[in-house]
Amino acid sequence: MKSDIEIAQSVAPENIMTIAKRAGIDEKYVEQYGNDKAKIDLSLLGESKNENGKLVLVTAITPTPAGEGKTTTTIGLADGLKKIGKNVVAALREPSLGPVFGIKGGAAGGGYAQVIPMEDINLHFTGDFHAIGAANNLLAAMLDNHIYQGNSLNIDPRRITWKRCVDMNDRQLRFITDGLGGRVNGVPREDGYDITVASEIMAVLCLSSSITDLKERLARIIVGYTYDNEPVTAGDLKAQGAMCALLKNALKPNLVQTLEGTPAFVHGGPFANIAHGCNSVIATKMALKCGDYAVTEAGFGADLGAEKFLDIKCRFANLKPDAVVLVATVRALKMHGGLAKTELADENLDALKKGIPNLLRHVSNIKNVYKLPLVVAVNRFPTDTDSEINFIIDECKKLGVNTVLSTVWADGGNGGIELANEVVRLCEEKNDFTFCYEDDLPLAEKIEAVVKKVYGGNGVVFTKTAQKQLVRLEELGFAKCPVCIAKTQYSFSDNPTLLGAPDGFEVTVRNVKISAGAGFVVVLTGDIMTMPGLPKVPAAEKIDVDENGKISGLF
Amino acid sequence: MKSDIEIAQSVAPENIMTIAKRAGIDEKYVEQYGNDKAKIDLSLLGESKNENGKLVLVTAITPTPAGEGKTTTTIGLADGLKKIGKNVVAALREPSLGPVFGIKGGAAGGGYAQVIPMEDINLHFTGDFHAIGAANNLLAAMLDNHIYQGNSLNIDPRRITWKRCVDMNDRQLRFITDGLGGRVNGVPREDGYDITVASEIMAVLCLSSSITDLKERLARIIVGYTYDNEPVTAGDLKAQGAMCALLKNALKPNLVQTLEGTPAFVHGGPFANIAHGCNSVIATKMALKCGDYAVTEAGFGADLGAEKFLDIKCRFANLKPDAVVLVATVRALKMHGGLAKTELADENLDALKKGIPNLLRHVSNIKNVYKLPLVVAVNRFPTDTDSEINFIIDECKKLGVNTVLSTVWADGGNGGIELANEVVRLCEEKNDFTFCYEDDLPLAEKIEAVVKKVYGGNGVVFTKTAQKQLVRLEELGFAKCPVCIAKTQYSFSDNPTLLGAPDGFEVTVRNVKISAGAGFVVVLTGDIMTMPGLPKVPAAEKIDVDENGKISGLF
Repeated sequence: MKSDIEIAQSVAPENIMTIAKRAGIDEKYVEQYGNDKAKIDLSLLGESKNENGKLVLVTAITPTPAGEGKTTTTIGLADGLKKIGKNVVAALREPSLGPVFGIKGGAAGGGYAQVIPMEDINLHFTGDFHAIGAANNLLAAMLDNHIYQGNSLNIDPRRITWKRCVDMNDRQLRFITDGLGGRVNGVPREDGYDITVASEIMAVLCLSSSITDLKERLARIIVGYTYDNEPVTAGDLKAQGAMCALLKNALKPNLVQTLEGTPAFVHGGPFANIAHGCNSVIATKMALKCGDYAVTEAGFGADLGAEKFLDIKCRFANLKPDAVVLVATVRALKMHGGLAKTELADENLDALKKGIPNLLRHVSNIKNVYKLPLVVAVNRFPTDTDSEINFIIDECKKLGVNTVLSTVWADGGNGGIELANEVVRLCEEKNDFTFCYEDDLPLAEKIEAVVKKVYGGNGVVFTKTAQKQLVRLEELGFAKCPVCIAKTQYSFSDNPTLLGAPDGFEVTVRNVKISAGAGFVVVLTGDIMTMPGLPKVPAAEKIDVDENGKISGLF
Repeated sequence: MKSDIEIAQSVAPENIMTIAKRAGIDEKYVEQYGNDKAKIDLSLLGESKNENGKLVLVTAITPTPAGEGKTTTTIGLADGLKKIGKNVVAALREPSLGPVFGIKGGAAGGGYAQVIPMEDINLHFTGDFHAIGAANNLLAAMLDNHIYQGNSLNIDPRRITWKRCVDMNDRQLRFITDGLGGRVNGVPREDGYDITVASEIMAVLCLSSSITDLKERLARIIVGYTYDNEPVTAGDLKAQGAMCALLKNALKPNLVQTLEGTPAFVHGGPFANIAHGCNSVIATKMALKCGDYAVTEAGFGADLGAEKFLDIKCRFANLKPDAVVLVATVRALKMHGGLAKTELADENLDALKKGIPNLLRHVSNIKNVYKLPLVVAVNRFPTDTDSEINFIIDECKKLGVNTVLSTVWADGGNGGIELANEVVRLCEEKNDFTFCYEDDLPLAEKIEAVVKKVYGGNGVVFTKTAQKQLVRLEELGFAKCPVCIAKTQYSFSDNPTLLGAPDGFEVTVRNVKISAGAGFVVVLTGDIMTMPGLPKVPAAEKIDVDENGKISGLF
């Protein structure tokens, strides 16, 4: 069997100008990056006379180690829509560089449903994440320099919330002390690094609608607090202009293609716990201008990714999805039913019965909370039996939702034709899209709304610290912000061992903080890892490049 | 008077495909980065049938705060050669991002002798330096992860020599402790950051002749020593393949243009003290393949930059310069004669007489040590008087060297025509290029050769530490390496206050270390700053970008 990179390298990409033309993008907007990548100028958004296309969101059940194939399905669905003659553009997240060298490998789809050039997309790509890192670290350097040069803003070094970042899995940098080495070398303090995708600048870039909006958001970023506990912003440090200059090209969406030549924007990729987990607003809007169908995805399961896509991204960007695809696998649902990863090869309807409530709760949320047309896409594996598949079909039918088999990993767009047809049908359905909560609700009640309506919990416990923080954030004027709940992705609850569709749980909110540039309140329900480490044998040890520049060992 | 960025933005760049064609580069080798930047595929080097052109090195007197305009003269000379009908390609260093936000501003020439797009060249450009940073930091992460995961190589955390890096002026990171936060968060140790241009990977990239050579050099990099004091390399950590994959695009030279449409490679920029201070070997070789004249430059004054260009880069890459241009200004020579920066506006032949020995020693070195044809280019300022200019002309004439006035800052290529004609003449002269020392000389004697023959010192004092280190490096097999002396750029001596052409001094060597990937022995004569800081009012505060992406405040 061919590996992902072997499949990706077996297809000769079309010139990116051809792909741009296929998406109806005039060449004046195209800035080529090599022959198979391009950035598209933002002026297209204002100048395009096109009507917006239909917006299709791909989300998934609660993730398990068995995998669901959400990105693969997103790409395969776009290729399927192209196969049935639709004008379609995908809008995907940009993978982080760090995890490529750890366990994860690449993140550009899989099998015959990939975006290419997969090596470039996984390694630096057009430099967006490095630009975000540079802007993040410029702000950090200006902050520490301000303190070093006299600290006229009265910043308390113990209350600095802004971290440095690097796009690398480097646990050694989680907790550091810096400014050591005596008077001329800074001011000693405790500090730490996040991986670049966890930087607030990633979220800011992905929510910005223009360079001006980006700059205003950057200026609002809170980097710490004074000795009097008043917020200090990037604007106070006069950093937003230079940061924005560093980000001006990163703000332009990247155009690439699927293995089948479908145009795909791959742009931005914030965390889906401490941030909102979607590709950029600008890329999504550009996909809507260029395609009659824009297919996009959100991170983790629907409780985290779709919730944030709908309650944060759609709210800020005034987007309305026309259909939702919820990806599930028989294997993953059997894990939710209690099986280990080694026990998935044989038919097991009991485990599937125990696990399916996970799928059904997500289905009900999309249909009944958000009131959106929905299809369940079962990403079919060879070991899945007809009885297992039929059971899923029947259970979803009871909720009035169709289930479609997808084989895009093995068959590319041909494996997504049935899904494409169902999506086209759904896009014409009645659509009463509703948020989970309204802007005016107090912050605590917004959190409760998500926990009760989306997670299925009984309620929320706020620690004393969190209660104080909520009061302070409302004092500071952030009461109307949406909430971005950082919770384990492995359970509807805040306990990663509660699989399936747990009931009767409460979610404990331990800390609440503001991402003032992004414009949302981050609600922490536990320790969220924002700097991964490398495993005992890093994937990096197997990655190589030959004399002609051909890369191997990415997967 | 227009600022550099205003001049740069007033010229509409030609499409980079036109520039490539002008340099005789077939479009199959061109990977566009936007409309005005490109990377050129390495296969051009092997496939080109062209004879090599003439190699012209631009260097300068010992730098002062008055400035010399070396990069400006390099660009203006290239434009001058174009004006007189020659087929010319420039090969320049790529500016570092960090200093752009500090005091320095941009580094893409000045006035009417600039390379464009200056904003892009100064900010990220094609991502080369971020790629170098990522490769550097991947190696650091793999090193610390190795120790964390059991340390089977027996690495002594106190003997780690590999630092992390970032392309930012950030003094706060000079001295840090990392791996804090308990058992799961790394192994606590002292650590520190360099600015990216000081990474050995920068030197490695700039000296590599191919992807294979790059990978072999990366594998040889020494990251630290075991508890038994044996070297540990990147190859021992199996990091070279992934590092090389990160660098494969960075190894391709970047093609841009001068304001007058002259093709220019801008590629690589190592420090000129702890490293060799020149653009990449591959870019220089490509310029020689594409141009009948390849004009390149070296960092700092000729004692540092030209010495390393000749004794390191030319030695490794088998290059032979055809002519050298030594840039001087009346103002800087008067500072060497004892004047302050505020005293330079009036004619002062006495100060010039006291300062000119600096120029004459550099002239003599190029002519008599390296035996290369040479012209002195006086970068003329409006305040320079004819008497001052004539004095320089007469003094150089006594050494058999012509002096030419250059006004490229104000006049572009037209201001460089006379210089271009003299360079063309020199390239046909007899040329007995000789290194300052041969490979077989012991390391200590190589250092002595440079100090006595190039610096004009009496000799070298080695500290006890340095003596031991030299013995150890020869034991480890590095005796045949060239030496890369890290010395203040402000004096021929190791004392930055000894201006002009000091005599009777000795140079103290405090530490000696190996850059095994680059292939040279670094000789430290004092504390070399490898992580700059920001000033009280960083240039970043003035940098801005408007809604259309137009940048201001770069200078």
